[in-house]
Amino acid sequence: MDLSIKGTNFLGYLPSQKGTQTFSTFSCRYQKSNEEVFHQITESELEIALEKASAASEKYALAPIEKRRNFLREIIALLEEHRTLLVQQFSKESSLSEDRGNVELARTQAQIQTYLDFISRKDWNLLHSQELNGVSFEKRLCPIGPVVVFGASNFPFAYSTVGGDVASALAAGNPVIYKANPFHAGLSEMVAGIVLQAAENNDLPDGVFSLVQGNDYWIGETLLKDERVKAVGFTGSVRGGEALLNYAKERKTPIPVFCEMGSLNPVFIFKDAFEGRTKEMVEKLSSAIKNDGGQFCTKPGLLFIEERGSEMFINAMRDEFTSAAAVPLLHPSIYNSFLKLSSVFDRFPVYRVEATAPEYSVYPQLTEMTAKEFSAFPAAKEEVFGPFSIIVKCADESEMKACFETIGGHLAASVWTDQSLSEEWMYLLSSRVGRIIKNGVSTGVAVIDSMHHGGNFPSTSDSRFTAVGKDAIYRFLQPVTLQNFKS
Amino acid sequence: MDLSIKGTNFLGYLPSQKGTQTFSTFSCRYQKSNEEVFHQITESELEIALEKASAASEKYALAPIEKRRNFLREIIALLEEHRTLLVQQFSKESSLSEDRGNVELARTQAQIQTYLDFISRKDWNLLHSQELNGVSFEKRLCPIGPVVVFGASNFPFAYSTVGGDVASALAAGNPVIYKANPFHAGLSEMVAGIVLQAAENNDLPDGVFSLVQGNDYWIGETLLKDERVKAVGFTGSVRGGEALLNYAKERKTPIPVFCEMGSLNPVFIFKDAFEGRTKEMVEKLSSAIKNDGGQFCTKPGLLFIEERGSEMFINAMRDEFTSAAAVPLLHPSIYNSFLKLSSVFDRFPVYRVEATAPEYSVYPQLTEMTAKEFSAFPAAKEEVFGPFSIIVKCADESEMKACFETIGGHLAASVWTDQSLSEEWMYLLSSRVGRIIKNGVSTGVAVIDSMHHGGNFPSTSDSRFTAVGKDAIYRFLQPVTLQNFKS
Repeated sequence: MDLSIKGTNFLGYLPSQKGTQTFSTFSCRYQKSNEEVFHQITESELEIALEKASAASEKYALAPIEKRRNFLREIIALLEEHRTLLVQQFSKESSLSEDRGNVELARTQAQIQTYLDFISRKDWNLLHSQELNGVSFEKRLCPIGPVVVFGASNFPFAYSTVGGDVASALAAGNPVIYKANPFHAGLSEMVAGIVLQAAENNDLPDGVFSLVQGNDYWIGETLLKDERVKAVGFTGSVRGGEALLNYAKERKTPIPVFCEMGSLNPVFIFKDAFEGRTKEMVEKLSSAIKNDGGQFCTKPGLLFIEERGSEMFINAMRDEFTSAAAVPLLHPSIYNSFLKLSSVFDRFPVYRVEATAPEYSVYPQLTEMTAKEFSAFPAAKEEVFGPFSIIVKCADESEMKACFETIGGHLAASVWTDQSLSEEWMYLLSSRVGRIIKNGVSTGVAVIDSMHHGGNFPSTSDSRFTAVGKDAIYRFLQPVTLQNFKS
Repeated sequence: MDLSIKGTNFLGYLPSQKGTQTFSTFSCRYQKSNEEVFHQITESELEIALEKASAASEKYALAPIEKRRNFLREIIALLEEHRTLLVQQFSKESSLSEDRGNVELARTQAQIQTYLDFISRKDWNLLHSQELNGVSFEKRLCPIGPVVVFGASNFPFAYSTVGGDVASALAAGNPVIYKANPFHAGLSEMVAGIVLQAAENNDLPDGVFSLVQGNDYWIGETLLKDERVKAVGFTGSVRGGEALLNYAKERKTPIPVFCEMGSLNPVFIFKDAFEGRTKEMVEKLSSAIKNDGGQFCTKPGLLFIEERGSEMFINAMRDEFTSAAAVPLLHPSIYNSFLKLSSVFDRFPVYRVEATAPEYSVYPQLTEMTAKEFSAFPAAKEEVFGPFSIIVKCADESEMKACFETIGGHLAASVWTDQSLSEEWMYLLSSRVGRIIKNGVSTGVAVIDSMHHGGNFPSTSDSRFTAVGKDAIYRFLQPVTLQNFKS
């Protein structure tokens, strides 16, 4: 199949580029716009995508499940077949390395496989079944209807065109309208072509998948307010997520809008950890903050430490940052935002290479402050997306706790200690954070059933659901009980 | 223990009645106010209840699970011990019979037992557990935090003070602030006394349960907007539910607000059913519409029938209604609403006893119209709460389908036929309705794991959750993954 980029939307199977408003992607690495030109969707094109998704709901839900499985299977295979081209485009539009692209593509395939495996189980959609006084009861999961997914800038494969949200929604039996992240519009078009090819190979209905290109707010607003849309998945900033949540408030019919937003992923280092784990902590934490420009939702953004005995750790961390190479960020707006947000910390000790980075690249930065300073400095409680973290020096455990109580919910938190954690700590963390890691870092989210990639607001909009692992499919399914259907 | 009614709120264990605004309950059966006087909560009292619930969260979550289990066990036993007094008060405030009170109390005990059984299972809160590359992962369910529950007028036991919502929230480990339905304030106080006695017997923290009395809107508004509240359960009208959902939109932090609201519970009678099932249908449907004044969320409100061959059915149904005794409704506002909403159908054939019912009582009423009339008459698509239903005469299946497509989501739908239902019908129903019953009625919701008591808007605010059965507890739990905690 031909994966050359035409700059188009897909309204179901129909390529369409009627819009006169165009945009391009950008390479922060090479400091220039990429050559492809994309046509932002028009209102009438978006209406067609919505109508097709709505019309496809019944047909897709009723298509033999083997077709749905084969659809996912072929997507995995086609991604593999076109790996080289896809990874090149990934790198070109994100300035992330091809190595990272290969790893992320494999992860994306593993995610699709997770949902494929789940819907390949016998009676996968049967929750409970029993008989009462001669009457049968079966509680089964059904598709929820058309799902709109907004792609993330920082995972051009894994949380984008056929990433976790799209794959789980499709596996559940829902048509998907995918709103591409404009910063990797080309890769989105290529992957959309693959999804549509796999759909066509399995005679799936027109509208089972659509690709929407653009970067204007009205697109999200229209999608969120449309009554044909039955659920939404979003991965991005707090600001972006809250905008969508606010649009949804104006709907006549409430629907689930799952937004994965900002997270500080606090780290708590207890004093005993400095005795045997300093080297390990420095390696793992500095990598987690710096790798791939620290552009992960699970990047450790706050390191609360018991100050006593932390000198070696602090010095080694400083060394890691004062020698760290500059890294191109994903796109200019993340770059500009990083410069703006990180610069407000100049009043504190800052550790980074003191040189001018190439435009659109930045030097990883470590900041230090005391617990008291942290409490008095609101900017320290907001996510700085990119290679940035803050060491907060605390007198003792209770000061760490007090600091934590002033920040919201998070996707993850790490604790470094060889002692067992008190019940109070476990309660405090588990009531605010979706995953607690002992002696490890929060980056590198395993795609397994036991993963919970969620957390209290603002890290997500509903702490009961996950965006990673098998359980993510439950966001897009609704139960029905069939009573007295077995004779 | 003393269950005499003092007209009080409970702020945790503390009885409090500082409010000068008072109200009474009313007996529609005896057409008079009951003698007890209740003090509406004040703003400062409500603040105490909120603060206590928030403070109790950690203590209750960390209390040994055996105490939580014993708490529920003792509630069941105390309800049994005081059955006679409770059922008398139930009947006095709701005008429902004592027989119904006894049945509903047993159901309420069974519901509590369901959650008790669930949290008595080994590892009940463990969703998944596995090891990956030597690192352990455990995904566990945790309490979500203080839950506010609004009681239903039509289930003074089963969806009230320690009904399904409260019992599931408490079993999950959450403190509960219970806002009593003002129409059975006395029974609420009695049952609250029982819950608090059981809590005290198990040394549970002050604030694990509070009772809020009153009938002003500011109470709901304050509770919904308070950041200490982490989830809400409501059972009542669409108007009431939407008011709460709107308050919640103004929160800084979004929380799950599960509202079970209005439902028409359509019935579809296919022509083959008239051949062998007429007698059964007439008995079951007329009972479901009339019994206990038809004041059930699952009352069949619309009977779509294939007209050919339906004469015997229609005549027998008319007979059931033209001979049905008057029944007192739950309270004056439901009575007034019934008179107002049912009277707009006077332009259609109406079947009921033609006499003047005692004040606050009504005669069950059956209305008939054609599919065409149904389409043109918006009032037919709104719930008339009480002993009222509409027969909609359709030419064929496709006309039934077309009618259904114009009404929203529902808790349940029944189909009467001995043929198997087409995939199109199954899709149509399961995408809009939480439970589909074949050759049976929607009333009498079994408390079993396979029950789904939910449905698309406006029947509930989130079609993914149920208000009945074990799974109702998932509304009030959030997962956390513990990574690398097993050494």
